[in-house]
Amino acid sequence: MKRVGIGLIGCGIVGGGVINHLGRNHDLLLERSGVDLFLAKIAVRDPSKARGADPALITGDWKEVIFHPDVQIVVEMMGGTTLAREVAEAAIRAGKPLVTANKALLAECGEDLLKLAEARKVPVYFEASVAGGIPILKALREGLRANHILGIHGIINGTCNYILSRMADEGSSYEEVLADAKRLGYAEADESLDVDGIDAAHKAAILASLAYGFWIRMDQLYVEGIRKVTDLDMAFAKKLGYAIKLLATIRPNSSRAVEVRVHPTLIPRSHVLASVSGAYNAVAVQGDVVGNTLFYGRGAGPDATASAVLSDIAEAALALDKDSAYRGFEKNTLYGRTVPMADVVTRYYVRLTVLNKPGVLARVAAIFGKHELGISSVFQPEDHEDETVPLVMLLDYGKESALQKAYNEIMSLDVVQEPCQVIRVEDFS
Amino acid sequence: MKRVGIGLIGCGIVGGGVINHLGRNHDLLLERSGVDLFLAKIAVRDPSKARGADPALITGDWKEVIFHPDVQIVVEMMGGTTLAREVAEAAIRAGKPLVTANKALLAECGEDLLKLAEARKVPVYFEASVAGGIPILKALREGLRANHILGIHGIINGTCNYILSRMADEGSSYEEVLADAKRLGYAEADESLDVDGIDAAHKAAILASLAYGFWIRMDQLYVEGIRKVTDLDMAFAKKLGYAIKLLATIRPNSSRAVEVRVHPTLIPRSHVLASVSGAYNAVAVQGDVVGNTLFYGRGAGPDATASAVLSDIAEAALALDKDSAYRGFEKNTLYGRTVPMADVVTRYYVRLTVLNKPGVLARVAAIFGKHELGISSVFQPEDHEDETVPLVMLLDYGKESALQKAYNEIMSLDVVQEPCQVIRVEDFS
Repeated sequence: MKRVGIGLIGCGIVGGGVINHLGRNHDLLLERSGVDLFLAKIAVRDPSKARGADPALITGDWKEVIFHPDVQIVVEMMGGTTLAREVAEAAIRAGKPLVTANKALLAECGEDLLKLAEARKVPVYFEASVAGGIPILKALREGLRANHILGIHGIINGTCNYILSRMADEGSSYEEVLADAKRLGYAEADESLDVDGIDAAHKAAILASLAYGFWIRMDQLYVEGIRKVTDLDMAFAKKLGYAIKLLATIRPNSSRAVEVRVHPTLIPRSHVLASVSGAYNAVAVQGDVVGNTLFYGRGAGPDATASAVLSDIAEAALALDKDSAYRGFEKNTLYGRTVPMADVVTRYYVRLTVLNKPGVLARVAAIFGKHELGISSVFQPEDHEDETVPLVMLLDYGKESALQKAYNEIMSLDVVQEPCQVIRVEDFS
Repeated sequence: MKRVGIGLIGCGIVGGGVINHLGRNHDLLLERSGVDLFLAKIAVRDPSKARGADPALITGDWKEVIFHPDVQIVVEMMGGTTLAREVAEAAIRAGKPLVTANKALLAECGEDLLKLAEARKVPVYFEASVAGGIPILKALREGLRANHILGIHGIINGTCNYILSRMADEGSSYEEVLADAKRLGYAEADESLDVDGIDAAHKAAILASLAYGFWIRMDQLYVEGIRKVTDLDMAFAKKLGYAIKLLATIRPNSSRAVEVRVHPTLIPRSHVLASVSGAYNAVAVQGDVVGNTLFYGRGAGPDATASAVLSDIAEAALALDKDSAYRGFEKNTLYGRTVPMADVVTRYYVRLTVLNKPGVLARVAAIFGKHELGISSVFQPEDHEDETVPLVMLLDYGKESALQKAYNEIMSLDVVQEPCQVIRVEDFS
């Protein structure tokens, strides 16, 4: 029986979950993997605040963890990208396999880290960084490896999905639901990483990089958060047969350049992703051989994350001292470019506030026509007492650059008032 | 660059799919895995019928494949359990990793095969044997390995799901849809393996064996097919808020004995599994750490199967000549017993044909009461002109043995006529 010592760096909510479940399911992991995993050392910034950890194992100095003779696997659970990067590099340089759930670290420094890891032949495991307990990275890298990935559509931020689901269910405003989500612990005190789409963008970058075999930088992604989604849009979307989700869309065009974008998206209510609600995550992957697949589960929280972290720890432990098949990052020269947002072709939902008088629709439609953007449906509520009225349109497929030009022209019309709104539409066709 | 020769035994529809997609995505697999895979030899029973294969590689003798010097990985695509077993054992004895999609072989002979493989340290890969292109075995064995599996619910036979989906959508009878399914190629000429639940039972046995770490024999499963499901049941189920699916249910009881059963099941229409329609498969896995997860995709056909087979081939190729972390079958002494069907506790849908006169319901209810089976709802259509009427009941949780006793007593009542029906209900609570 192999005994393997774990060094944990960072012991907040997620680190605490790892300690908790390693304790509870130690025997199961021993049975299944034949490895006796034990916590050898734990570093926390403030030793008085370590959650559920044996005080004898605690240190305030992360280097003590990495260089501890009993530590064979380093688990980075601190978050952030500055100190975390230093920790990750030190672990790799010390020849100790690294397990992390840190999506920001991977998205920002993954290329450098994995290069270092490859050079030193030290494996880095990061299944928990995307979609929590759903083994989606393993599926992409291994289970679907024989596929050209034709598209990935993911709901990969639980906070945004919780807020949007409640807005849809209750007809409440973004601000109301956000305040409640904070009270209930579904949103952080500083919500910006989540609601501005940054967290989802980090995960999208990781998914895309693994699916297409080249590292996609954060500045190659298009990111738009959910702050601008209103209860009015929710209501119109529902009426038109759509749900609004913060969706990550990743797909290659016909010349194998990859578009990666995260933004609020109207999706047909009949699509399975529309019924992914609350804090759940789901990733739909379309492969050229396998066809459509979907992976669903809890995307965050200490338990779901611990499930993935412990699986990675077990995998790392089994591979210790072995000439393992683990190849780090699998480069792929068949892909390598991203699509600039201006060149993306998609459908659009446009909601305008227009003066309540004849001829307005004609002027708006003329501008879309000029830019070769087809209008597939128009909706205007019947209550015409007010001075201004909403005008909602669904556009056919069109180029983002054309849409932006048309939209700017329309906004400069004297008959169009604030507020107006554009949300992209995905019909999975 | 490593060149690895593949030996294919059996070249029907599925084997042809492997050849086709290996050709199409050879370069992708080379990029991603660094392995140059090539077909070295192909055995078919009738060499004149090999699908899409290079005639120079064809032989009628499977031994030529296994002992061919260029063949490093043996891919068994012939099906069946007699000759396939001989082939599988010969490959393992020859020290050549085996890839197979043969669920019958695994379910019937998996224990012996994997023992032999473990003794010879030859890996056996069989991801394609369950749920086609969905990497569910990898998820269970690796991604969710830190979890006690609290339950698995799977729609794992595409033919049955296609038939039941169409019955539900069209209100047609089983016989009508089956005939059409055969015509369209969704059901085999001899449909019995599918519609009698045998194929799903093979897959359930494999899922359960991997999830709980002991081999579950076919005689330890309860299996019931879909032949008995009528359009009347479909209609009543819909009215009560349920769908009828051929569901594999796998779960441990409180003393860690595992129940494994495959039978038509009423599931709430609001549950995500109810919306898995047509030839798709889905497996919901509940882990004690991760919570609820779901894996969805095409469960059969040459493409979905080829996706899994090629992924296994690549994994086998990467692990060749390495002291790999692959451990074959992961035994687990925390589990080891199955639950006899008589002891299973579940809910029931009961449809009786009763004489149209007063007092019948009271007599039926009294028998259920005597056996401590609670009735949670009763439904009887209002049209009371006929001599007999249907009486539909949903029962609360009760023991299978009690249900069977009560049902036999009820069937012997003079006021109860044929046909009657019992279908189990899963409410996922």
